Amino acid sequence: MAERELAAFLSVHPANVRYLTGFTGSSGFLLVGPEVAGLVTDFRYREQASEEVPDGLPVWIHGDGWREEVAARLPDVMGEDAGDGSGVGFESDRVTVRDRERLEDAVPEVRWSGVSGLVEELRSRKSDDEVERIRRAARLGDRVLESFLDEVVEGATEAELAAELDYRLRLAGSEGVAFETIVAAGPRSALPHASPSGRPLREGDLVLVDFGARSGGYCSDMTRVFCLGAPEEWQRSLHRSVLRAQQAALERVEPGIEAAAVDGAAREALEEDGLVEHFGHSAGHGIGLEVHEEPSVSARSEDRLREGHVITVEPGAYLEGRGGVRIEDDVVVRPGGAEVITGFPRELREL
Amino acid sequence: MAERELAAFLSVHPANVRYLTGFTGSSGFLLVGPEVAGLVTDFRYREQASEEVPDGLPVWIHGDGWREEVAARLPDVMGEDAGDGSGVGFESDRVTVRDRERLEDAVPEVRWSGVSGLVEELRSRKSDDEVERIRRAARLGDRVLESFLDEVVEGATEAELAAELDYRLRLAGSEGVAFETIVAAGPRSALPHASPSGRPLREGDLVLVDFGARSGGYCSDMTRVFCLGAPEEWQRSLHRSVLRAQQAALERVEPGIEAAAVDGAAREALEEDGLVEHFGHSAGHGIGLEVHEEPSVSARSEDRLREGHVITVEPGAYLEGRGGVRIEDDVVVRPGGAEVITGFPRELREL
Repeated sequence: MAERELAAFLSVHPANVRYLTGFTGSSGFLLVGPEVAGLVTDFRYREQASEEVPDGLPVWIHGDGWREEVAARLPDVMGEDAGDGSGVGFESDRVTVRDRERLEDAVPEVRWSGVSGLVEELRSRKSDDEVERIRRAARLGDRVLESFLDEVVEGATEAELAAELDYRLRLAGSEGVAFETIVAAGPRSALPHASPSGRPLREGDLVLVDFGARSGGYCSDMTRVFCLGAPEEWQRSLHRSVLRAQQAALERVEPGIEAAAVDGAAREALEEDGLVEHFGHSAGHGIGLEVHEEPSVSARSEDRLREGHVITVEPGAYLEGRGGVRIEDDVVVRPGGAEVITGFPRELREL
Repeated sequence: MAERELAAFLSVHPANVRYLTGFTGSSGFLLVGPEVAGLVTDFRYREQASEEVPDGLPVWIHGDGWREEVAARLPDVMGEDAGDGSGVGFESDRVTVRDRERLEDAVPEVRWSGVSGLVEELRSRKSDDEVERIRRAARLGDRVLESFLDEVVEGATEAELAAELDYRLRLAGSEGVAFETIVAAGPRSALPHASPSGRPLREGDLVLVDFGARSGGYCSDMTRVFCLGAPEEWQRSLHRSVLRAQQAALERVEPGIEAAAVDGAAREALEEDGLVEHFGHSAGHGIGLEVHEEPSVSARSEDRLREGHVITVEPGAYLEGRGGVRIEDDVVVRPGGAEVITGFPRELREL
């Protein structure tokens, strides 16, 4: 902030505000200045905010809107720098064009300065406590997936199974689900972004299950593929190729490596099996308070892996009209390589 | 658009894109010009987009990012107006500061012009088909709430009950849930924004249930309060006051009236019972593809109700440390007044 001559910073993105303050409400705005910081929220969160934020961080309840409250508090937050044309940083990836206009109208005397990815980069390297939360979510997912498999039978629909898995996750203690659970069977397992449908499972289907739990606010994200009945050779072969690609990608994970190289390792392995054109998405992404966060693990990523990053590694191959396989695990980037924290066996299991 | 000298319009908000094109994917960007329009999306949605959008609307799959694809397509979409300094409108309430910068960098020769609420206003007045979808969601909610009440027993936790209700909604055909279901019991029913907790229900608790189903993409939103065991007099009285306030608000609903007057009617009724300071939120909001949309039904709203608006009417009163009541129904604004489409009885029911 000193480098950019910013006297204050405004954070509006819920996951960033939670990371910086502990506040878990859906509407909170953090103002940070050289000597004073404070959280702006509304009356619904008065009690909760006071309990969640650190001692000494004031909670400012807005009446007529958060922008007006930010405007009213800004002189105090900026302190002696206020009004001399020094800047206030804001999250340019999160603030809308209209909100920026309103902030500028409310406080025209300061220079509003967009900042991209500042808190997101801090968030990408996890503390031990954060890793433990992701691990708890991952273990909860492992257990619930195992218990859920009894329900995966001929005739059950994708939508029923997704509802069943989510229900079990929540009864087991997951804070909701990390994202909309995918259950996609048969040819639909080849759709790279399938919403669970009313299609009933049939003998011989590949059944792709992609889901995440949430614990202490942190997400897990795992994909496994099962076969309803004995797999045919093409199904075994497809699964074997994707598993090999995932292994190749996992072996490249270490601090300092370009994230694109992890993606590249998966792609090379699939290329050897003639499947690379059936792998359309990226090989992974960071997880944490959000299910997609930094770093990006794609061919075009400019990120480098760093110690404490927690990422998914999830190559896939999708044969249109037949079926698809994706295998996804969550890993912590450690000095010695990847520590895999999702424990569910990766073999193609017959149900 | 002619008024603003805009040669094209870019819609980026998923609910707006769905409204205008039928596309239900999570990532779609609509470009509309004087003669050509098209939907920009990614490979995941190639097949789905082609099935969902109207014949004649091309689907453009982006490789290197949607902004680059928009930039590449813009000259064709703008036609003869391209490059002469005429404007391209974009949704200033939805586009981030950073995305605007990127669009300007990619196509500096056009004037990018923020537009607020254009599609949202179109969306606020529902067609018969849209009302039917909301009605289906509301009826599904009515049925599922009734079947769910068997589970509301002493010892069950708020979180278990919320999971149970969501599970039943989905098995009954709801497309997920419209928002995070609230089950809040005892003193927690007085928290204006309670996440379901691990607190077990106790005899004498007020139990507040606020939930929504989704059908054909459209949301319902209903709140009812129950009493575990025979209600005490303060509970009956609180419920009676809120019901009276809701009735007063419902009676004001008609085309042409200021939405603030509906809120005001609820507030006046609560004032007569000495409860107005315990009613902190607004009296309602529009529902549709999103669970909160136009019009706003608050004291500060500048909206007028119009025929075809679908809104919630949901006054509440919350006694800290004791319990709260909110009664919420969904209504269509008709020439003759409010048509209530949520059917579940509003009386304080003893469980």
